[in-house]
Amino acid sequence: MSKQTTLTISSKNYSSWSLRGWLMLKLSGLPFQEVAVHPDDVDNRAELLLLSPSILVPRLDHDGCKVWDTMAIGEYLNELNPKAHLLPKDPVARAHCRSVCGEMHSGFSAMRASLPMNIKGKFESFKVWSKAQIDINRILVIWQDCLSTYGGPFLFGKEPTLADAMFAPVVTRFLTYHVELDKASERYCEHIMAMPEMKEWVMGALEEPDDIEELEVEF
Amino acid sequence: MSKQTTLTISSKNYSSWSLRGWLMLKLSGLPFQEVAVHPDDVDNRAELLLLSPSILVPRLDHDGCKVWDTMAIGEYLNELNPKAHLLPKDPVARAHCRSVCGEMHSGFSAMRASLPMNIKGKFESFKVWSKAQIDINRILVIWQDCLSTYGGPFLFGKEPTLADAMFAPVVTRFLTYHVELDKASERYCEHIMAMPEMKEWVMGALEEPDDIEELEVEF
Repeated sequence: MSKQTTLTISSKNYSSWSLRGWLMLKLSGLPFQEVAVHPDDVDNRAELLLLSPSILVPRLDHDGCKVWDTMAIGEYLNELNPKAHLLPKDPVARAHCRSVCGEMHSGFSAMRASLPMNIKGKFESFKVWSKAQIDINRILVIWQDCLSTYGGPFLFGKEPTLADAMFAPVVTRFLTYHVELDKASERYCEHIMAMPEMKEWVMGALEEPDDIEELEVEF
Repeated sequence: MSKQTTLTISSKNYSSWSLRGWLMLKLSGLPFQEVAVHPDDVDNRAELLLLSPSILVPRLDHDGCKVWDTMAIGEYLNELNPKAHLLPKDPVARAHCRSVCGEMHSGFSAMRASLPMNIKGKFESFKVWSKAQIDINRILVIWQDCLSTYGGPFLFGKEPTLADAMFAPVVTRFLTYHVELDKASERYCEHIMAMPEMKEWVMGALEEPDDIEELEVEF
């Protein structure tokens, strides 16, 4: 490995975008080093709030190339290692995969705002706001559609794709806030949480000091 | 042309996502028919609000393949006709292009909420909210960076890419709300508005009946 690859991420407990980018990189098979940005550091916080590109997370640095949007990272990794099949081979399935990734990338703001990722948290009688419930319902329709069309256990069949990385933080939210799920979605969540990569991420989240504040930078 | 291609869009005056998808399709060179969904129709409105996939806009239907997220449409068209160079050929520039497309796709919510696209509108003494100004400042930095790196007149050089389609509705907003711009950004806005495709879209917006309500569906 002559090329230096780093992924800049923030909190493993709170940063859903960091999880998405990290999981994509793991699935790509490319060895990398993590660089953690702590949002509770005053200077970092100021930069994060101003969305300075010097600190956008997640950010992939690969051999001098900087990529700082999660879907752009996914597309970059897919081009770098097509054999990892981060996107489905079939063009119609690939378009479907990118469509649902896109919905997650730019949408579901009510769900994201009111059920923030918090892997350590457990809220058993959490009241889901009606607008967030509309988002949740749409996500469950997307999952059911994918699982029945491609046969599971991942959204686009036997192997994980960018879509599973995009929805992985949603899986953790559904568990954190005890969101009611249909059987197929419940099995899907179990399957995602059983991935060795997810176990590694969750372990990192649980070991994180409690004084790291949430500061989600969304884009 | 044996394949039937349609693009479902909503208001040409108000729907920024429709403009992005439409412009991408124009730039791809693929002949297509427009299907207009009128958001002031009660049934359509109900479906749009529920984000029913039967009516998500913009939606590309190409030879039986449905693609309903704007960036997914862009990636699909780029695969279909690589010669249109919807993405830069150089891998580092391509990653850069996808990164800034991604920022536009999922970000700038303050700017989007407070300066909605309204091509017919002209607001000369519009007060820009400070959070929207932060978004605007970041967009101008993106533009300046691209224009100086790749030499203009488009963001990634001599020919338009997905990035120009993604930012085209922002150009119309800056004109509608008389946003203060640096010289390079002003020239860029003029260049975008002078594109024959943009002139065609603007003509469509101006001809639209005034009673079509705004209903931006963001995803």
